Amino acid sequence: MPLDLEIIESTAAMQARARELRATGKTIVFVPTMGFLHAGHLSLMEIGREHGDILVASIFVNPTQFGPGEDLEAYPRDMPRDLALLEEVGADIVFTPTPDEIYTPGFQTYVTLEHLPNRLCGLSRPVHFRGVATVVTKLFHIVLPHAAVFGLKDYQQYVIIKRLVKDLGLDIRIIGGPTMREADGLALSSRNAYLNPAERESAICLNQALARADQMIKEGIVESQAIIAQSAAYIEAHTGTQIDYIALVDPETLEDVARIDRPVQMALAVKVGSTRLIDNRRLNE
Amino acid sequence: MPLDLEIIESTAAMQARARELRATGKTIVFVPTMGFLHAGHLSLMEIGREHGDILVASIFVNPTQFGPGEDLEAYPRDMPRDLALLEEVGADIVFTPTPDEIYTPGFQTYVTLEHLPNRLCGLSRPVHFRGVATVVTKLFHIVLPHAAVFGLKDYQQYVIIKRLVKDLGLDIRIIGGPTMREADGLALSSRNAYLNPAERESAICLNQALARADQMIKEGIVESQAIIAQSAAYIEAHTGTQIDYIALVDPETLEDVARIDRPVQMALAVKVGSTRLIDNRRLNE
Repeated sequence: MPLDLEIIESTAAMQARARELRATGKTIVFVPTMGFLHAGHLSLMEIGREHGDILVASIFVNPTQFGPGEDLEAYPRDMPRDLALLEEVGADIVFTPTPDEIYTPGFQTYVTLEHLPNRLCGLSRPVHFRGVATVVTKLFHIVLPHAAVFGLKDYQQYVIIKRLVKDLGLDIRIIGGPTMREADGLALSSRNAYLNPAERESAICLNQALARADQMIKEGIVESQAIIAQSAAYIEAHTGTQIDYIALVDPETLEDVARIDRPVQMALAVKVGSTRLIDNRRLNE
Repeated sequence: MPLDLEIIESTAAMQARARELRATGKTIVFVPTMGFLHAGHLSLMEIGREHGDILVASIFVNPTQFGPGEDLEAYPRDMPRDLALLEEVGADIVFTPTPDEIYTPGFQTYVTLEHLPNRLCGLSRPVHFRGVATVVTKLFHIVLPHAAVFGLKDYQQYVIIKRLVKDLGLDIRIIGGPTMREADGLALSSRNAYLNPAERESAICLNQALARADQMIKEGIVESQAIIAQSAAYIEAHTGTQIDYIALVDPETLEDVARIDRPVQMALAVKVGSTRLIDNRRLNE
């Protein structure tokens, strides 16, 4: 059966197709991904389909958002399976550029934010959000969407994209898609594929720590330090875990909140074995 | 007589107007300025009119491209005169945002280039091109032009804008407009208004130095150092001058060229009294 899904590899062809769609009055919704799609990505596609006429996905493992020693080469890829899943979920177009198509010779322009990247994941991944902000801005210029969907699981990324769209005057609506989870609560992530069975078992402690913090606040604990200390002890009790950060922050500025007197975002990053996992949850809403 | 020129002050209104024009199939040409218009700007408007249906100018003295101690406050302004000139030259729309309209609360996103700003004017104006690249990118997102015209007098700016448009995938044609000059050769600049009569007389040495360098190359001198040394001596012989830089560079990368065996861009910046002037010329074409 031939695919209904249209596969576009070149920047020029994608941009021309987007212009053509816009000229005929179609609205474009965009879901950028790094591929190796799971149910979390597919839920973003479902949300996307509700918000416009044409659903464009991209699959691009973006080299500039991986630091030295990170897992760029090892990052899991399965293009045939991804294309079949996109077809199934009803995507209209998939943009699959090569790195050379995005980073042309002499490339040297980056989109940088002064404050939001210097928090949470940005502290242990210093070039990550510069790479994300740059590639997303470029993809926006190529796909020309009216709206774009980003997973709330990558919460800091979501806040950064919303900020840059506002700051640079892009006329694009940014929609956050809820985190999808395994039956035991582990947030879906392409990196879960790295976990061995014992690590997979330990990995549920991230979501459980978030749920326990939610409960602590409901029971009247208002000091962030107390919640962070208890969460750290809980996570450290699981084999093979190593905490990168546990933070309670303002949902927009990502600045630390000392006293829980308004809604806060709790975010954490934990290495389980050699795999770094993240999760987050809105508390005290 | 009512103005035919449409004046738009808000970002949202400008973007809506641009969307509307595009929806009706009109092409938009954009000439960004900092106002206090002179014949150099007007020549860019004339070029713009040739390249599209609707000519949009902007007047915005962009604070982020002025460093501490630079002339942001003193920068000359004359909005009523500017509007009359734009009307006369046949501009259709002028976008005149306030700084608050461009730099909304919490603004923190910048467009940065890794190499091109670290040369020529960028060395003595370290934040200048970050401010230029950022505001031009934002203005592009608001005015949504098909083409934009920049004066070649600000040669480094022109090269940087061309580079960022390519790097970030913006579908905008960048057109360079030739430098306009006074009868004695002084390049037109809003900053010429700062010169007293004696300084005004010395200021012609910039263009004369470029013309003399052109002549030296035609006479067979091929070492950049020899040309730079002679140009420096010539400029320093004029009262009240102080050289910032004299450089012979590759027209695209702006890297120094030691031996003139291909076309080069000669660029210079000279303080005359307290006014910093720049000029440039393509040599050995």
